[in-house]
Amino acid sequence: MAGNTYDSYRESVAGRANVADTPALAAYYQQLEQLDAGALWTVANKIEPWQPKSESVPVLWRYRDLREHVLRAVELVTPEQAGRRVVYLNNPGRREVSAAVGWLYSGLQVMNPGEAASAHSHSASALRFIMEGTGAYTIVDGHKVMLGKNDFVLTPNGTWHEHGVAAYGTPCIWQDGLDIPLVNAMEAGFYAVHPDLQQAITHPVDDLTAIWGAKGLHPQKGDWDKRYSPLFKYEWEPTYEALTQYARVSDGSPFDGVLMNYVNPVNGGPVMPTIGASMQLLRPGEKTRAHRHTGSFIYQVAKGSGCSIINGQRFEWTERDIFCVPSWAFHEHSNASSSDDACLFCFSDLPVMHSLGLYREEALAENGGHQVASG
Amino acid sequence: MAGNTYDSYRESVAGRANVADTPALAAYYQQLEQLDAGALWTVANKIEPWQPKSESVPVLWRYRDLREHVLRAVELVTPEQAGRRVVYLNNPGRREVSAAVGWLYSGLQVMNPGEAASAHSHSASALRFIMEGTGAYTIVDGHKVMLGKNDFVLTPNGTWHEHGVAAYGTPCIWQDGLDIPLVNAMEAGFYAVHPDLQQAITHPVDDLTAIWGAKGLHPQKGDWDKRYSPLFKYEWEPTYEALTQYARVSDGSPFDGVLMNYVNPVNGGPVMPTIGASMQLLRPGEKTRAHRHTGSFIYQVAKGSGCSIINGQRFEWTERDIFCVPSWAFHEHSNASSSDDACLFCFSDLPVMHSLGLYREEALAENGGHQVASG
Amino acid sequence: MAGNTYDSYRESVAGRANVADTPALAAYYQQLEQLDAGALWTVANKIEPWQPKSESVPVLWRYRDLREHVLRAVELVTPEQAGRRVVYLNNPGRREVSAAVGWLYSGLQVMNPGEAASAHSHSASALRFIMEGTGAYTIVDGHKVMLGKNDFVLTPNGTWHEHGVAAYGTPCIWQDGLDIPLVNAMEAGFYAVHPDLQQAITHPVDDLTAIWGAKGLHPQKGDWDKRYSPLFKYEWEPTYEALTQYARVSDGSPFDGVLMNYVNPVNGGPVMPTIGASMQLLRPGEKTRAHRHTGSFIYQVAKGSGCSIINGQRFEWTERDIFCVPSWAFHEHSNASSSDDACLFCFSDLPVMHSLGLYREEALAENGGHQVASG
Amino acid sequence: MAGNTYDSYRESVAGRANVADTPALAAYYQQLEQLDAGALWTVANKIEPWQPKSESVPVLWRYRDLREHVLRAVELVTPEQAGRRVVYLNNPGRREVSAAVGWLYSGLQVMNPGEAASAHSHSASALRFIMEGTGAYTIVDGHKVMLGKNDFVLTPNGTWHEHGVAAYGTPCIWQDGLDIPLVNAMEAGFYAVHPDLQQAITHPVDDLTAIWGAKGLHPQKGDWDKRYSPLFKYEWEPTYEALTQYARVSDGSPFDGVLMNYVNPVNGGPVMPTIGASMQLLRPGEKTRAHRHTGSFIYQVAKGSGCSIINGQRFEWTERDIFCVPSWAFHEHSNASSSDDACLFCFSDLPVMHSLGLYREEALAENGGHQVASG
Repeated sequence: MAGNTYDSYRESVAGRANVADTPALAAYYQQLEQLDAGALWTVANKIEPWQPKSESVPVLWRYRDLREHVLRAVELVTPEQAGRRVVYLNNPGRREVSAAVGWLYSGLQVMNPGEAASAHSHSASALRFIMEGTGAYTIVDGHKVMLGKNDFVLTPNGTWHEHGVAAYGTPCIWQDGLDIPLVNAMEAGFYAVHPDLQQAITHPVDDLTAIWGAKGLHPQKGDWDKRYSPLFKYEWEPTYEALTQYARVSDGSPFDGVLMNYVNPVNGGPVMPTIGASMQLLRPGEKTRAHRHTGSFIYQVAKGSGCSIINGQRFEWTERDIFCVPSWAFHEHSNASSSDDACLFCFSDLPVMHSLGLYREEALAENGGHQVASG
Repeated sequence: MAGNTYDSYRESVAGRANVADTPALAAYYQQLEQLDAGALWTVANKIEPWQPKSESVPVLWRYRDLREHVLRAVELVTPEQAGRRVVYLNNPGRREVSAAVGWLYSGLQVMNPGEAASAHSHSASALRFIMEGTGAYTIVDGHKVMLGKNDFVLTPNGTWHEHGVAAYGTPCIWQDGLDIPLVNAMEAGFYAVHPDLQQAITHPVDDLTAIWGAKGLHPQKGDWDKRYSPLFKYEWEPTYEALTQYARVSDGSPFDGVLMNYVNPVNGGPVMPTIGASMQLLRPGEKTRAHRHTGSFIYQVAKGSGCSIINGQRFEWTERDIFCVPSWAFHEHSNASSSDDACLFCFSDLPVMHSLGLYREEALAENGGHQVASG
Repeated sequence: MAGNTYDSYRESVAGRANVADTPALAAYYQQLEQLDAGALWTVANKIEPWQPKSESVPVLWRYRDLREHVLRAVELVTPEQAGRRVVYLNNPGRREVSAAVGWLYSGLQVMNPGEAASAHSHSASALRFIMEGTGAYTIVDGHKVMLGKNDFVLTPNGTWHEHGVAAYGTPCIWQDGLDIPLVNAMEAGFYAVHPDLQQAITHPVDDLTAIWGAKGLHPQKGDWDKRYSPLFKYEWEPTYEALTQYARVSDGSPFDGVLMNYVNPVNGGPVMPTIGASMQLLRPGEKTRAHRHTGSFIYQVAKGSGCSIINGQRFEWTERDIFCVPSWAFHEHSNASSSDDACLFCFSDLPVMHSLGLYREEALAENGGHQVASG
Repeated sequence: MAGNTYDSYRESVAGRANVADTPALAAYYQQLEQLDAGALWTVANKIEPWQPKSESVPVLWRYRDLREHVLRAVELVTPEQAGRRVVYLNNPGRREVSAAVGWLYSGLQVMNPGEAASAHSHSASALRFIMEGTGAYTIVDGHKVMLGKNDFVLTPNGTWHEHGVAAYGTPCIWQDGLDIPLVNAMEAGFYAVHPDLQQAITHPVDDLTAIWGAKGLHPQKGDWDKRYSPLFKYEWEPTYEALTQYARVSDGSPFDGVLMNYVNPVNGGPVMPTIGASMQLLRPGEKTRAHRHTGSFIYQVAKGSGCSIINGQRFEWTERDIFCVPSWAFHEHSNASSSDDACLFCFSDLPVMHSLGLYREEALAENGGHQVASG
């Protein structure tokens, strides 16, 4: 509360604070400050806005811009020095918390064949989405998971995990998605390095896909009491097949096209308590209508090209580009191709919005549901 | 309590009823009968047994015996006369309630190409498991489902449903499984014939498989508030593939081999509130150990041949045979082949046991966990 | 299926079985019987009725009739001989299973001051509702619960429990309610006598009331993973107060007056998985409208007098009388007093109806919602 | 990222980032900044701390200091100008977000007899705890709730609500508790003024207490599908009685004494999805052991006096004082009286910690579980 002005948030609306500064009030406010207190009416209109105004701005990160810098990290630092060689995405409105949007962190990590990171564990929940390369793997609590392009893998809150690339592979780049900023904001973050730096592989490779990845079937001994999905890996091929099948029998959503949510097969809920994920297919020529909702969203273009209009700003994207949609920002997507479909991978804090009872949604009413775009 | 004997259930065990008949007591008992009442101690030991004693007996129904009789039904009655041409399985201990075991009904139904049954709805929950033929279909609440050998389909409590065989198909035989006896016992059975005798197909064929049959993905608009699975059909091919995959990474159960439960993808629960279903794979030469548990079970041999010992009685089975395991009967299975696996489809009232808090399980401790078999 | 008649359930309604006996069919049916099988169309209309027809009949058990017989049991048998001195209520339609209605057992038990029954455990779930006397107590898994008139106590499935009357008390009579017939029908009943015949009291008397009986508060260490309520005792005084309060602010139900369900405070569900309980208050002069629903119900008059019409039959009741309403029987209640309220305690298998998806309800449409009564 | 230093978070621990600045790296970092990106290893150790370090500091707000300032607000501003006359509590570490601790807001509000605030609705969840005065009331979605000292009332997310003091009452002061900072941080805050500025009272006064405040009983028509408790008011008298009863039969917790959580009677969960509340009783002379856990906590002294040691700092408190415990701060409490009990009301974001899977707890191992205190 720098300076002597306390009434900068006044609104002359019934039911809102509208108190003009006076010397007597200023003296009162200063007394309150001495007591680690304040007068609500000086900040009420600030802290109770009529609707959300995100600190994040829409950003598109082009892969053609970032890729070379990601690869340069291999030359510049060793995994031992860096821990992880990652270029992280830094929203101009969220630099202080190193977030890509809202309370979500994201970065592009690179690893060469034969490299393996050290095993660690943290309170943040994480996923990685493979962008290029072969031979990538992740080990989560003793389960080794092999990963190909457009696959994604969970490394949930509290699990021991480590990433690597097989010696027979190629340099791999993937997108990391974590809720590090959220966990820090909640002041609940713990971090541990594995005592042996590497963990043992205690199960057959990709066993959880075999156990939990069946259509409509669960293992008899399906006791899983964790808060996150036991199906650590979600593969691209069956996902794309599922979207194609779903598109065959459904019109999808006017706002999202044909969208499916990745789920925890144990209970049909989100893959982790704090991060949800989805893949959506825009049919050839499809152009969705605009809506907005609470929650922060990071998209990666898994297939095709097109454009999105976010709060009136146009972003052209092509395969491997990443963009974000801040909370309560209008957004609409279109597929630029009239012959091929386009697919957008997305992760978000939607499970948090739902858990906390804070989800709200609104369609754009004007202009046939389409924004007038700039940019 | 006809006759003059009231003390036939006496037990000389502390804590159990042990009252000998006397003329005074007999007079008392008769007075109570006049008041629609009785003395608990005359029946306590009968109605509170030390452990369950099923009224059902283990039965094996050989398909080679039943098949010709099922086919003869086509000549003997029209679908219009019979409603459904079904030979039902009648456990010798459950003739009064037309049950195959416990409170479960089962029968073999036959239908010729081009035939279609009339649509109806009932409080009983039902499933059908295809045994032979091509072109079979079921319509459930406007969703048409095409069915092949070893597929099974749900027609849950309260849904409009009807069965048929396409004109291009062959005569089809399938096994019906219902909880008719249970619903009757609960005095909660309603039945309705569809006002038009046939219902309209209001969705794309097999749409629910496309919508709900994806690995680890749910449709965005996945609002399903019914108590039963939206995935009405469970197909054989992905099921067998799932068992094979699961067997690759798991030792399975000493009592059941490699067993997977069919689940409701919305919540991971059983396919219907009153009937659960599973498919289990016995590896070449596998011989399970004996256990017993509450609940009534009907098996159909989906693949291979072998034998089961049920309460000490041996039953040799081969593909398409059906057998039942009554509540609290020890049972163990073995695969007769040293080179091929064997698969057993099973449906049961296990969800009822769990809902009512009545599930209990016990391994056979003696003789290395194996029964001494007769029969 | 004795004799030669197989077509006694024919109905000439489209969609129903309507096959006349012929010599060829009779021969066929007999062949099927040899194979433990039958033709569905001979029984289909029997086992799939249009709506439930209960085997139970409505019965009113007058306390003035039963009380002397209950007290005589004290003279006729010792607790050691009888196990429990109980006169049980035997519905004329359910004699074979010793049920008062449907699958519910009920009886009146008597115990003298200083007597204590032996401790046992069973799969049946039980409750007792105190009708008269002072000093009654129950011990459940080491928790001793003191009981007064119109209190009721749970002794759930699998708990060690025993009843007694303190030496300083008076002869006590209470109503027992159990699901013994249901558990037997489910073939899931186990019974055990406590190895020491008596169990130790391991907690302060009435501790669970202190821990779980608070308004809107739970203990910090509220870990309770059982399927039944931890609040074993539900006392009359706060129950009557709650109904009075609720009546002050609510019109109640046209069919039930002011009715509250006893709940498991941990999750708001029924007190036990198989038995629910409620207390309802009929305001002075209140006369409810008739409806019917699935489920079997046993009422005890906790206060006042009035009458109920059940399936057209009138039953006049006064305090301590017991009556039953079978499944799908129309019923309506009226309070005979124009100045005092009347209260009906009720227990039922409603949780079973809900768990199994079998609950259905219907208001009487005709005659202003009132039955024309006889009897 | 001010200046040219990027390596200020280095740690020489295997598995942690440890990259020294070089000119080449600095150039690389600046290139990344141009792309709204950064190198993870420059911030990794900052954003992934070994354990939480709260931005909040422990604070004690003495009522004797604040009360006069609160009362002065009545003279300084009208309700119409101020919206609400509230002195809010401003943690020195959380001034930017106007939080008392973590993401929780709290303030002391005053209202004179006959005053009524305008009705509004917001996404924040709120509670108020009455500190002094008579005649206070709150209206929530048409339900009027009368409030006395130490009562607390919910005004959940999305409800229309307004506060007032009856003309016959006295000046009232209460503590407000809200999750405004959390909802703002989540960028999900909406605010609305009631179109009529006042809402109609559409139910009998205190009806929800009559309907949902019964011990172990729910209303028959207990359909409540909201995410928050229908029991809007929790009264002091039955709460204190409940604690006294619980203390009689339980040792309580070594860290919290005799603590009970306010719950949603519908499901036993917290009163609102984002704010939980509890009342704890410290027995005469009781001195708890220290522990720490994630989550932010605000205490008000409802009764008695004593002291708390929070992260090694001693705070002496007496009735009506307020203090906070930041996340992961060790804390222990002691009752200063050897004859009277002391009671602490507390509200917190514990439900958020649990929903997001972020709760963690640790007892102080050293020094017999007691901190060495300063302050």
